[in-house]
Amino acid sequence: MALLFVSAHDHAEDWVNELKAQLPELDVRVWPEGMGDPAEIDYALVWKPPAGLLASLPKLKVIFSLGAGVDALLADPTLPDLPLVRMVEPGLTEGMTEYVCLHVLRWHRDAPLFEAQQRDVVWKQLTHQHLARERRVGILGLGALGSDAAQVLKALRFDVAGWSRSPKQLDGIATYHGAEGLAPFLARTDILVCLLPLTPDTENILDAGLFAQLPRGAVVINAARGRHLVEEDLLAALNSGHLAGATLDVFRTEPLPADHPFWTHPRVTVTPHVAAITQARTAVEQVVGGLKRLAAGQPLINLVDRRRGY
Amino acid sequence: MALLFVSAHDHAEDWVNELKAQLPELDVRVWPEGMGDPAEIDYALVWKPPAGLLASLPKLKVIFSLGAGVDALLADPTLPDLPLVRMVEPGLTEGMTEYVCLHVLRWHRDAPLFEAQQRDVVWKQLTHQHLARERRVGILGLGALGSDAAQVLKALRFDVAGWSRSPKQLDGIATYHGAEGLAPFLARTDILVCLLPLTPDTENILDAGLFAQLPRGAVVINAARGRHLVEEDLLAALNSGHLAGATLDVFRTEPLPADHPFWTHPRVTVTPHVAAITQARTAVEQVVGGLKRLAAGQPLINLVDRRRGY
Ligand SMILES: NC(=O)c1ccc[n+]([C@@H]2O[C@H](COP(=O)([O-])OP(=O)(O)OC[C@H]3O[C@@H](n4cnc5c(N)ncnc54)[C@H](OP(=O)(O)O)[C@@H]3O)[C@@H](O)[C@H]2O)c1
Ligand SMILES: NC(=O)c1ccc[n+]([C@@H]2O[C@H](COP(=O)([O-])OP(=O)(O)OC[C@H]3O[C@@H](n4cnc5c(N)ncnc54)[C@H](OP(=O)(O)O)[C@@H]3O)[C@@H](O)[C@H]2O)c1
Repeated sequence: MALLFVSAHDHAEDWVNELKAQLPELDVRVWPEGMGDPAEIDYALVWKPPAGLLASLPKLKVIFSLGAGVDALLADPTLPDLPLVRMVEPGLTEGMTEYVCLHVLRWHRDAPLFEAQQRDVVWKQLTHQHLARERRVGILGLGALGSDAAQVLKALRFDVAGWSRSPKQLDGIATYHGAEGLAPFLARTDILVCLLPLTPDTENILDAGLFAQLPRGAVVINAARGRHLVEEDLLAALNSGHLAGATLDVFRTEPLPADHPFWTHPRVTVTPHVAAITQARTAVEQVVGGLKRLAAGQPLINLVDRRRGY
Repeated sequence: MALLFVSAHDHAEDWVNELKAQLPELDVRVWPEGMGDPAEIDYALVWKPPAGLLASLPKLKVIFSLGAGVDALLADPTLPDLPLVRMVEPGLTEGMTEYVCLHVLRWHRDAPLFEAQQRDVVWKQLTHQHLARERRVGILGLGALGSDAAQVLKALRFDVAGWSRSPKQLDGIATYHGAEGLAPFLARTDILVCLLPLTPDTENILDAGLFAQLPRGAVVINAARGRHLVEEDLLAALNSGHLAGATLDVFRTEPLPADHPFWTHPRVTVTPHVAAITQARTAVEQVVGGLKRLAAGQPLINLVDRRRGY
């Protein structure tokens, strides 16, 4: 049983060690040098593999994605028609929830203002402070990541709502769904967090039309994919004063080009795609679990529905 | 029944309106112009009243503090020996918990590093990301503020401990108490949060000896009182590399003097005493509740124990 590990972005060694520790009989090969005979590969564990690589493995049975989002994989027209398992693992989920809570709190508590005051050596208090329970947070996407973030934001006492494709029930969270649910969801959202998968339906969803439906002074946080956001529309909404700020972790071009206006915009916080990282120490258990299910003839979980695109 | 409102730091109008709305029969007087005859004052609701003012009110029965901390009041040797009620109100508690969670997350997630990278237009990821459950947060003080912050940090999945004078039990929180409990508590604390009252026992508690007991790379957050901290000891511990950073909301001199090294230290975050603000809309209910208890002959709650100093 051979598994091919393919990622130029992760420490292969951590993954190999962790896989070996949990499943000693697994023959782990690391692309490119360690691949060996392509006909011996049964499984692939991948992040952004070169187009065509997976199609060149004749005995491949299942593809495991190292990331939660499979948009890059599905963009490869040669991707073989095999079961595709996306990543759902505590490191990714918890890391994203931390990032979302940090950046929601940061805008909620005017941290960018106080950071600027420190730089300018200005001691100035605010006359009014909203409480979290008075601040409405809205999460686009209530999947593995969005539903966890929603629940922890609720524990922080925010007034939380979420939007998904199908109807959802989450304790203490106002839920909206589908095209008709979007407008009322946006109308009650002071801080918007995007945690959608990138699909033809969600590409460019963060545009002028959506921003106009948010109350004046709203903030946008995008931790999903760069192509959810129409960048010029965000800049226009910030510069007109309709939006108060934005935190962006993902961009249409990554690394974000040095001359991009987001870097220096006073009301944009840029982070270098670090919201949540799949971590070998917590994620290998999920992959090994999948391999064990296969061996036991049980159905795989966290399978991507290619029609939906996530 | 006349109540004197004394504060140069709050909007008296908000308080008067809210008090009138909740207790229309209350005769609210605003110091200094609106005080009238000192002999008519039954109650005082105060923040940093001038020394001697309270002693000059012959019929005064109870003193209500607008703040959680009563160190400034107790420092006035002429303070009359009357029941002194400290402030416990959701606006203060929730506001402090938000501040603590924001600044714990900020260091936990290396936000100061990413803010610096944005200023320098640098796109650089970290190779490793700790999860909250792998980060040990320690809270000095498990009173109204500390116990709430501990519980919400726990909901954020941090590994939380607290230290108090008397033994405490809090679900999912490791608790330590007294002089003998301090060393083991510090030894397991990566991010230390001070939420102690300022008393002779706690003054200067954040000093070189305490910092040396924290693991290398620890962070200190002080949102209690400036006099808890020996400022030179903090600078020395930061500059030696033993401590990785600090967030400070309170200072020995406020406003923090423009030439103070904290303003420009690359690993110190300064906020202008804004962690939690007593808010008329949530706090008046507590004061009115106290007045109603008095009228009904019931014992007051949240009384300060002058011997302990809090
Ligand atoms: N920045 C980072 O570091 C980082 C890290 C990890 C992941 N991500 C991104 O986060 C995304 C979300 O991850 P996840 O694990 O939470 O995904 P998921 O479990 O597949 O959940 C996706 C959610 O979005 C909803 N959705 C999808 N299409 C929709 C549409 N057209 N209209 C309304 N709702 C729609 C789904 O609705 P239903 O529940 O009705 O299906 C579901 O609630 C990933 O795809 C990835 O791109 C970013
Ligand atoms: N920066 C701001 O904006 C801001 C806003 C509000 C308040 N504050 C500060 O926060 C402080 C704490 O407020 P609070 O309402 O939580 O106070 P509290 O309810 O009186 O709680 C104080 C806690 O500290 C513990 N403690 C006191 N002396 C101790 C000692 N010598 N050794 C060990 N533990 C000791 C107490 O232990 P026991 O439980 O055993 O008594 C208790 O757990 C206030 O006094 C105020 O100075 C700052």
